[in-house]
Amino acid sequence: MSTSTTTALEPDSARAGYDRDRAVRVAVLGVGMMGQDHARRLATLTAGAELVAVSDVDAARTDAVAAEFGVRAIHDPKAAILDPEVDAIVIATPGFTHEDLVLVALEAGKPVLCEKPLTTSPETSRRIVEAEAALGRPLVQVGFMRRFDAGYQQLRGLVESGEYGRTLFLHCAHRNATTPPNFSSEMLVLDSVVHEVDIARYLTGEEIVAIRVIAPRSTSAAPEGLRDPQFVIMETESGILVDVEIFVNTTFGYEVRTELVAEKGQARIGLPEGMVTQSGQGWGGSIPKDFKERFGAAYDVEFQRWIDAVRSGANVDGPGVWDGYAAAAVCAAGVESLRTGERVEIDLGVKP
Amino acid sequence: MSTSTTTALEPDSARAGYDRDRAVRVAVLGVGMMGQDHARRLATLTAGAELVAVSDVDAARTDAVAAEFGVRAIHDPKAAILDPEVDAIVIATPGFTHEDLVLVALEAGKPVLCEKPLTTSPETSRRIVEAEAALGRPLVQVGFMRRFDAGYQQLRGLVESGEYGRTLFLHCAHRNATTPPNFSSEMLVLDSVVHEVDIARYLTGEEIVAIRVIAPRSTSAAPEGLRDPQFVIMETESGILVDVEIFVNTTFGYEVRTELVAEKGQARIGLPEGMVTQSGQGWGGSIPKDFKERFGAAYDVEFQRWIDAVRSGANVDGPGVWDGYAAAAVCAAGVESLRTGERVEIDLGVKP
Amino acid sequence: MSTSTTTALEPDSARAGYDRDRAVRVAVLGVGMMGQDHARRLATLTAGAELVAVSDVDAARTDAVAAEFGVRAIHDPKAAILDPEVDAIVIATPGFTHEDLVLVALEAGKPVLCEKPLTTSPETSRRIVEAEAALGRPLVQVGFMRRFDAGYQQLRGLVESGEYGRTLFLHCAHRNATTPPNFSSEMLVLDSVVHEVDIARYLTGEEIVAIRVIAPRSTSAAPEGLRDPQFVIMETESGILVDVEIFVNTTFGYEVRTELVAEKGQARIGLPEGMVTQSGQGWGGSIPKDFKERFGAAYDVEFQRWIDAVRSGANVDGPGVWDGYAAAAVCAAGVESLRTGERVEIDLGVKP
Amino acid sequence: MSTSTTTALEPDSARAGYDRDRAVRVAVLGVGMMGQDHARRLATLTAGAELVAVSDVDAARTDAVAAEFGVRAIHDPKAAILDPEVDAIVIATPGFTHEDLVLVALEAGKPVLCEKPLTTSPETSRRIVEAEAALGRPLVQVGFMRRFDAGYQQLRGLVESGEYGRTLFLHCAHRNATTPPNFSSEMLVLDSVVHEVDIARYLTGEEIVAIRVIAPRSTSAAPEGLRDPQFVIMETESGILVDVEIFVNTTFGYEVRTELVAEKGQARIGLPEGMVTQSGQGWGGSIPKDFKERFGAAYDVEFQRWIDAVRSGANVDGPGVWDGYAAAAVCAAGVESLRTGERVEIDLGVKP
Repeated sequence: MSTSTTTALEPDSARAGYDRDRAVRVAVLGVGMMGQDHARRLATLTAGAELVAVSDVDAARTDAVAAEFGVRAIHDPKAAILDPEVDAIVIATPGFTHEDLVLVALEAGKPVLCEKPLTTSPETSRRIVEAEAALGRPLVQVGFMRRFDAGYQQLRGLVESGEYGRTLFLHCAHRNATTPPNFSSEMLVLDSVVHEVDIARYLTGEEIVAIRVIAPRSTSAAPEGLRDPQFVIMETESGILVDVEIFVNTTFGYEVRTELVAEKGQARIGLPEGMVTQSGQGWGGSIPKDFKERFGAAYDVEFQRWIDAVRSGANVDGPGVWDGYAAAAVCAAGVESLRTGERVEIDLGVKP
Repeated sequence: MSTSTTTALEPDSARAGYDRDRAVRVAVLGVGMMGQDHARRLATLTAGAELVAVSDVDAARTDAVAAEFGVRAIHDPKAAILDPEVDAIVIATPGFTHEDLVLVALEAGKPVLCEKPLTTSPETSRRIVEAEAALGRPLVQVGFMRRFDAGYQQLRGLVESGEYGRTLFLHCAHRNATTPPNFSSEMLVLDSVVHEVDIARYLTGEEIVAIRVIAPRSTSAAPEGLRDPQFVIMETESGILVDVEIFVNTTFGYEVRTELVAEKGQARIGLPEGMVTQSGQGWGGSIPKDFKERFGAAYDVEFQRWIDAVRSGANVDGPGVWDGYAAAAVCAAGVESLRTGERVEIDLGVKP
Repeated sequence: MSTSTTTALEPDSARAGYDRDRAVRVAVLGVGMMGQDHARRLATLTAGAELVAVSDVDAARTDAVAAEFGVRAIHDPKAAILDPEVDAIVIATPGFTHEDLVLVALEAGKPVLCEKPLTTSPETSRRIVEAEAALGRPLVQVGFMRRFDAGYQQLRGLVESGEYGRTLFLHCAHRNATTPPNFSSEMLVLDSVVHEVDIARYLTGEEIVAIRVIAPRSTSAAPEGLRDPQFVIMETESGILVDVEIFVNTTFGYEVRTELVAEKGQARIGLPEGMVTQSGQGWGGSIPKDFKERFGAAYDVEFQRWIDAVRSGANVDGPGVWDGYAAAAVCAAGVESLRTGERVEIDLGVKP
Repeated sequence: MSTSTTTALEPDSARAGYDRDRAVRVAVLGVGMMGQDHARRLATLTAGAELVAVSDVDAARTDAVAAEFGVRAIHDPKAAILDPEVDAIVIATPGFTHEDLVLVALEAGKPVLCEKPLTTSPETSRRIVEAEAALGRPLVQVGFMRRFDAGYQQLRGLVESGEYGRTLFLHCAHRNATTPPNFSSEMLVLDSVVHEVDIARYLTGEEIVAIRVIAPRSTSAAPEGLRDPQFVIMETESGILVDVEIFVNTTFGYEVRTELVAEKGQARIGLPEGMVTQSGQGWGGSIPKDFKERFGAAYDVEFQRWIDAVRSGANVDGPGVWDGYAAAAVCAAGVESLRTGERVEIDLGVKP
């Protein structure tokens, strides 16, 4: 939990067991809402981590966040990656910057936790897959935090147990109260459904081979021109059907529910939890207001396990670059389907 | 439950209020599982009804059921309809016989409660629509009993209140433990999804204009050759999307759930109810074993309201022949979609 | 619902099976809110029953209700009992009148369904027990309708199955939105907890041998001087503990919940049911507004089974006079405990 | 998150903000099941903490656990407290040793997180209250971890909001699958109900002034001589009634539920959460198997907040010695009531 060394961790050194003598020194790139949350997490919650620097294209914001946490402000993100006192990097910058930053980190041999999407196109994600493969060892984890949510882990445990036979359907609902300005119809797929894409792969252990996106009539609450909600139907290799209601202007709360239907049973997660009240309003409870409330604990676990993996030399303990690439490929096909109305097939090519 | 009059009710007589002096004398045609249940209902539960006769192509069964309830066995169903001591008819025979029997009843001017389907094709259902229209007054109610279920009535009340804005989706699941022998892939649509077709029309107040049926990989529990489960997507006039998971060999229980997603809120019915236990098995409850357990109370209400309607001279208090026809047309299109894999549009023509 | 016979049913006549040829002609005594509800039930829902008369000390109300249902108004309740065209009697008058009316009915040999309480004191209830015992056959059923609620029947089925071992606790909550004017502290026990007294006896199959009533600080919503809520602790013969939160000015809804704790498991009934919604208010559902909404179906079943019992000659199919007497004795002890703060033991004497 | 210093933290030094340059070096005293769990927590989960030593009367166990975590084994617990390389102490030894150990730590001026009970009698707890008061600053936190459970915090937030008016009842159930050997009837109060005592004080903000413990018939699963279950009734200063079903041989799972009844609403926590399944077994979910599963996250939060408090110089962020003393006094009265069957009043004396 403590360290006085000032040289970067040697990620390929053989390590026996848990190294208690050094903390992992982390730089967070991008300190918007998400990056700030991660900086706070690393500074106050993650055992074995030490937040040492933050970096953002907005220099004033960089300085302010650095001051808040008492760490260095490094205005050039690539300089932050290469800094000798930085052992590992969290990337929380906008998606279009990911490719460059991840490639720099790969070249520097430093572990990365990259927020989703890995990159914004299948082609660029594929390049990262190839670059890491050339390196010969995993360095990049992708921030699909749902895999660290207790509910999804229970669902996967159930699938793996084989108790209910083969999976037949996944029915998913993914709902947000509102969208930020400039949220486009494609972003419902690229930004939101991408989580269901990863979860469908995680739960079924299969690749997705086809996708169809249907845009029914939009809600009055959607900004002019936004196709919201949408309905997505995916097929996996063995023929499991995955449907997703994606609805991002529900006007209230945040809700992610998944129901798995198998041959001999079903299971649901994401149902309302917590205190149940009764009053003149009826009985019931509250709905998480945003993804931080719903998945905050999953992020905490994700970060702790990632830091543990970095300390152990494994570097990755969760979804990797292939998962990031597959998600990008499925979502790109989804955007095509949204435009054409047709079912679109997906071919990932050979995994290196 | 008793009456000494021997003349049939005059269905077009003007009636003021509730006629307490006469019970409606009912014949049940078809006394398989369903018909027997209806016979028992009329004999012991429905106020104002008197079960007077049963009829079935299986003469031995007719005699046995008649003896059990102490009523007449009439072996020819058309004779039962025409019998002067029969005021009203419940049709629970196989679907292919419905057209003939309903037309006889229409000609005789006697009220009918016809189990779904009204008939087995849009064309034959359309003939009944025309025949009743020619008669100038409603005589035929179709047995879509879900409309009498408290849950569906609550959902519809919510839609009508406008509180949650316009409806965007209906997500439906319809699950049975097992299928009888000779259940075909088409029957998942014709026999089971037909209920969701009617409920979608009831809840949205709109006609269904297109349907697509997807058959993913089948469950191991399905008999050889049966495409089970299936996934159905329907569109209404205004663009509401209705999806249905139909899965009829789940190996346990009976479950019908419907979730309505509207612009400002969602609502679910059909969730587990009843006693909740805790023990070494975990916590939970039981699942209805069949549709009689799940919808028994809805049938009771349906029959009581139908008998009340017959006594008042209104004859129909629930879905009528147009509803039966629309359901037949949508299901026929669904069967076509199941065969072709394509989206099929539906045109009901003009309502007389 | 109709009959042309004018002689009373011979209640002791031997009957083979179900008598389909005659309806039971019923008079309802007391047509306040409860009595009117029962009159409506008998007139429109209960198969085999015919509402023929109503009677109330308020002559104008009697006439109005009689007119509404098209039945006779009989101003003297004893005359209604003795009327030759009345086969059976529902007593829904105030409790203090019950003793006299039930004794008249017993003398006339006519079946009675008497709303709880059977009478207002153990002594008077005991007199009815003796009178019926002298008659040699059961004629009086007491209106503890919860025994006909599906939830309580499931709980009892669980106890009888022995699956969870011996019962250890019953935890009960009984809540009303508000109380009518002049509701006294004693009435929380006499009018409300009386239901839990009966249910505790029904579920455990044991008599209650001691009771203690604790009145903690009262809610601000209680009228001046009313001790509301109260907390009641009862002990059964074998040492099962039954606790009851009775709270009758919750300001909203009606709620009756019972949790049974046994050696190897627990079970709860009365949890919220029905449609579940989500909106800006959170997720949840509605709470029954009153006992009619919560137990309406139980009353329907109670009446149907009582009429069936009368038609079969059994006359009683549910709690009888001993149950009414035991409840009166326990509640009287409860009132004593409320006054003294002490645990009060109960001795029912010998059952005739 | 790192430190190279070898001198103890100066607990009374003025500190501005969060000290990122040093981890708190912690010794865990007592490494049975609970102490080992805390050692693991400090070693792998708590940011800003460094596990440096463990101590246990069982020398072999001390050595084994020390080796597992790569920390020092100090066989004499008092030596561990006084060790200059130990900044703070977690006490997880048996309750009867607590008084001595806490007093040593107080004398050494070192922060302590002491598992409940603070001590085993009101008198000894009172001595600690006096000793800390003499010191003039808080050093001792008591391990009532439920205060860090999200559910209890929601309940308390609701009380503090005043939205539902004044609290009237707390209904509590506290259930364990089995008890360890030598668990006595008194320990149901001293070891288990002590949590409800603290929670009742936490939620109501009031002291408990009287307690009554009723021991109904015992479950067959209880070891010979153990009075299990018991029913506890407490009264607070303002007259709130707190009842607790304590049942520690339910044969399955671990369950802690609390229902708060206030003037205008109720709220429940501890209801089943997590994945809900359906299969041939019915619908439902699993029950936490033990307190570590149910309250693991609360322990995590408790430790993080305690370490943060130690680093900030506040030393205590949660229940303190007065809370430990009050709980001891109420439980001692509870044991007396269990023996006598009488209501026992509690007088805490003046708070220093």
